[in-house]
Order: sequence, then structure tokens, then C-alpha cells
Amino acid sequence: MSNKEKERILTGDRPTGKLHLGHYVGSLQNRVELQEEYDTFLIIADVQALTTNFEQPEKLGEDVRQVARDYLAAGIDPEKTTIFVQSMVPEIAELTIFFSMLVTVNQLRHNPTIKSEADQYGYKEMSYGFLGYPVSQAADISFCRANLVPVGEDQIPHIEQTRKIVRKFNNLYGEVFPEPKALISDFPRLMGLDGKSKMSKSLNNAIYLSDSVEEVNKKIMQAKTDPARIHKDDPGHPEVCTVFHYHEAFNKEESGEIASRCRAGTIGCVACKKRMAKKLNEFLDPMRERRKKYLENPELIEEIIQKGTKRARKEAAITLKKVREVMKIDYFNN
Amino acid sequence: MSNKEKERILTGDRPTGKLHLGHYVGSLQNRVELQEEYDTFLIIADVQALTTNFEQPEKLGEDVRQVARDYLAAGIDPEKTTIFVQSMVPEIAELTIFFSMLVTVNQLRHNPTIKSEADQYGYKEMSYGFLGYPVSQAADISFCRANLVPVGEDQIPHIEQTRKIVRKFNNLYGEVFPEPKALISDFPRLMGLDGKSKMSKSLNNAIYLSDSVEEVNKKIMQAKTDPARIHKDDPGHPEVCTVFHYHEAFNKEESGEIASRCRAGTIGCVACKKRMAKKLNEFLDPMRERRKKYLENPELIEEIIQKGTKRARKEAAITLKKVREVMKIDYFNN
Repeated sequence: MSNKEKERILTGDRPTGKLHLGHYVGSLQNRVELQEEYDTFLIIADVQALTTNFEQPEKLGEDVRQVARDYLAAGIDPEKTTIFVQSMVPEIAELTIFFSMLVTVNQLRHNPTIKSEADQYGYKEMSYGFLGYPVSQAADISFCRANLVPVGEDQIPHIEQTRKIVRKFNNLYGEVFPEPKALISDFPRLMGLDGKSKMSKSLNNAIYLSDSVEEVNKKIMQAKTDPARIHKDDPGHPEVCTVFHYHEAFNKEESGEIASRCRAGTIGCVACKKRMAKKLNEFLDPMRERRKKYLENPELIEEIIQKGTKRARKEAAITLKKVREVMKIDYFNN
Repeated sequence: MSNKEKERILTGDRPTGKLHLGHYVGSLQNRVELQEEYDTFLIIADVQALTTNFEQPEKLGEDVRQVARDYLAAGIDPEKTTIFVQSMVPEIAELTIFFSMLVTVNQLRHNPTIKSEADQYGYKEMSYGFLGYPVSQAADISFCRANLVPVGEDQIPHIEQTRKIVRKFNNLYGEVFPEPKALISDFPRLMGLDGKSKMSKSLNNAIYLSDSVEEVNKKIMQAKTDPARIHKDDPGHPEVCTVFHYHEAFNKEESGEIASRCRAGTIGCVACKKRMAKKLNEFLDPMRERRKKYLENPELIEEIIQKGTKRARKEAAITLKKVREVMKIDYFNN
């Protein structure tokens, strides 16, 4: 099936550092599958990263490359998925400006996700750009006329906001944009190595897709297990063990056996961890292989991003031409 | 002196219809003089017009051409002044997005001009775009690195806002923008034909730069004069007469004589009005001559705007390249 006949997905990340197993389980794995069926646009949302990080943009350059490498290592195929950088598509900025007339300040202030994120970042004063990031997100989705956006439950208010903006635009000026639908994917959140919180870079409890064999081994050995288990033949409680949680996520086929043996006290934590680490490394090995190619040939990353951005801009130009036409602001057929 | 050595001015208007004598006295005349000394960028701010007019963009096409014709008729020289259309310079949208991280929602909400304009338009709910128009204005001024902005007193808070944003940008990332200065020009406001309010399109009390000889004659004949003067030999009070107000603005050299004769009751209102109308038509005749050329050759308007927009985009590209460099987001020397 050609891209023309496929539905289009917009998805992506703010480039804020290395991706970890939590990202893989929560979205990357899904994207690798979706690219077979959908025409996927994968945005590296650097301008959106600036809304919370405008004081240190200098890290973005490395982070953009890092996230692209992580995508490619994880199995995103640049022949199937259009990987591009937000700031390199000026049409997104133009569309954001047009959309900003179609949403009120109060709608944005009452957006529950904006509110909880502002609390999370401890903002006493929101920047104008931060308040408007759902508008910018609506433009990210709409510039390529995406139909579908894979999101978790917490992102639903943003998709609703996009649908409202797009509906208002279409009603006022003429039909240009599909109303995008949320493709809700409620993957279980992956626990961090501390066994307390979900895996997260800021909590320093993550296994990265780019970790070496040694790093994975070391991290798994330090992972939190059942605290009631002191001697290796004490009966364990796999349901409270981080390592067992990983067996369930990455070693499904052996997890039943491991749970029984843990409960019976016939497998010790060290042995169990070794099996997990081995399994994880087997899982990461093909990613390491692909990553190696891109690390040795960094120009490949640039080529892929330039090519993706070119395709994104081509779609953006089609959209903005239609936008100007229906708004009747294509004064000189510009 | 070449443009390179000249200081740069940014000025312009929202395209909201024909320009009238009030515009001429208040800003156009000044711009015609300033273009001799400064490198003037004249923006037709159509995107800003959308902040209050997004529901009827279809009039913008004619209004953009109209305002360009009025500029050229009034003596703006496209060889000296760069006339361009805001929406045709996408770099302004990009810069607006970057600037929107550098200003808080509260700063904008407390901007006195935003507040009074929101009241004026009777907004219960402000759109996100309306709240942010000072940010967009900062981008209009800064994209071409203008040093000077001719403004009236009421626009000073906007220039202050621009200076704050630019200062913050320069401090955070590196020196890219001059801090623009307000070139305060307090021209007396021109009274409308009703003698009650300043000349304004919405009050239907205006003489337009594009009015014909007959229209000017008719409007002046209907203009409000001294209500105490019933017979033509009653002594008059020129200080309360709209027509005398126009003599002072457009017939300075005869205004002393006219005031004396009015006070003495030796010139009647009809005769006084005829002299005014004749004077005004003499004043407008060269504008009519120039306008005729552009009406007969509408492609000239397009050529001038396309050429001006091209020059504006050239400056915009230089600015955005610098912006990306100092922000270190020129990942691939893009």
C-alpha cells in the first residue's frame, strides 16, 4: 500500500536526552509496529523543548542527534517513517500563529495538563510560550494533516484542544484539516530500578537503550528486589520485585517459571538478575548493532533528518497553500 | 548615504481599509520625510489585523492593496522604503515563537494598551493570539533589526515590551538585536468632519486620501462649523470650527487672515469652506495623479510588494541565521 492511501500518524518527543526502556515500552515499540501500517511523521520537538528549557538551548544539538539515534536503533525505519526537526519546519510556526486566534487564553489556562505541568515545573509565572504549547502542538499535528495521534491518557486534553482548534478553523474558513483522533495506547508504565517510581531520567533509575552490556549488568544487579527476601532460599514475592516486573516486560516466556521458583525459594535473586540482564542484553544487542552504524557514520543521521525534514516541508507547503487559499490571504497567489 | 550606513526604522499599519487625512497628518507625512534619512521598513500587518478580525479575513486582500496604494499616493517611494506584507515573511512567525518564551503571561495581561484595547473591542474572552500581539510586534520590529520605531504616546508600552524581550534574548543567547528606540512623534490629532471626535473610519467622519474632488467638496460643505454663527456676517469663533482646524493643518499660510475675517464676520462659512475644499483638492491632486498610475497598472502594486517582501525576507534570513547560531539550534548549519 502506498503512503498516499495510508492514514497518517503524527508522534514524537521533546529532545531532552537519551531514551530508556520506559520510552521503548511506552511508545517506541508501538511506533515501530505502527510504521508498517501508517504513514508516520515523527517529530523531534525542539521548539516545544524550549518552552521549559529556553535558558539552556545549547544541549539541544546533541539531544536531537541522540533521540534520532535512539529512534533508528529501536527499529524506526527512515524509509517508512518521516523523522524531522520541528524548528526546521517554519510552516509550523506560521500555523501556530494562525491557530492562536482560534483559542482563548482561558481555554488554555483551564487545560488540566498545562495546569499540572506548570505545578510540576514549579512555575509561579508561566511564559506566554508555555501557556501556548497546546496551540503549537495543534500545529505540529495539523501541518501534515495527520489523522491519528498515539497518546497516553494524560495527553487526551491536548488532542481535544487540537480537535477544537481544527474544527473552528474548518468551520470558519473551509475544510483543510482532518480532526485528528487519539490512538489511545495504555501501555503499563515501566518501573524504575529503585522499584518506587516509573522509569525516568530525572530520577536516575533508568536503563537506557544506549547502555552498554556492562552498564546493563551493573544496573540490574543493583535493582531493588523483594525486601522480605534476605537469604536466597527465602520464599519471594515476585509481585513486589522490580526485576520480576522486567521479566514480565522483556522475558514473558520465562516469567511464569521464574515466578514459581521465586515463590518456592528455588532461584536466588542473583541468579534471577543474571538471567534478566542476559535477556535484556539480547534484546538490546540488535539496537546496539544499528546504533554502531550511526555512531560511526554520524553524517547518516544528518542525511536522514534532512530528508525527513524535506518531506515534512513538502507536506507543510501543501497545507499552508490551502490555508492561505481558504483564508483568502494568498494575495498574490503566494 | 547608502542604506547600509543609515539607521533602520520599522513602521506600518494594519490593513483595515482606506487611509484618511488623519493618518496622513498623524504618521504618513512623517514617514515620507523619514524615508529620506532612514532605511525604512513599512509593514502591512495583516496577521496582526487577524488578531481582531480573524472571522473576516476575506477583506484583507483588497485592504492590503488599498493601503499600499495609499502609501505610494502619499509619497512613499518604493526605492527608498521597503513595503512588505507580514504574512509573506514566515521568519516573523518563527521569531514570534522564540520570543514567546521570553515574556510571561502576566506581563502581557498587565500591558495597559492590551487592556484598553480589549475593553475597546468589548472582549470578554481574549484569544491567545490577541494577548500575544505585543510579542508578534516585537518580532515585526526585530526581524529586520530596526533601531527606531516612530510611535505615538499610546504605543510606548509596546516598545518597552519589545525592548525587554530583546534585552532578555541578547543577555541569554548573545547580541543579535538592537534595543529599538521609540521615535515619539506627537502630531496633533486631526478632528473629524463632525467636529466631535478625531477623524476615524468607524465614525464615518473622514476625508480619505482616495476621495475624488467632488467627494471632498461635498464633505467639506457638510463639515461642522461654529454653531453660534447663523448669518454669514455674524462674528465667528474659529477655535471651535472644524473647517478652520483644517485650514490650520492644510492651509497654514492663509489661516491667520481667515481667522481674522471669520471673527470680524467678513467671510461667510460657505466661502471659507470653498477655499478649504480648493486647498485640500490642490493638496490631494498630486496623490490622485500617482494613485491613477497604480489603479491603471495594478501589477505595479504587486511588483512593489513582492520586491519589498523579498528584501524583507533577505534581512529576515540574516537575522534568523544569527538567532539560530546564538541559540545553538543551527544543528546542521541550517
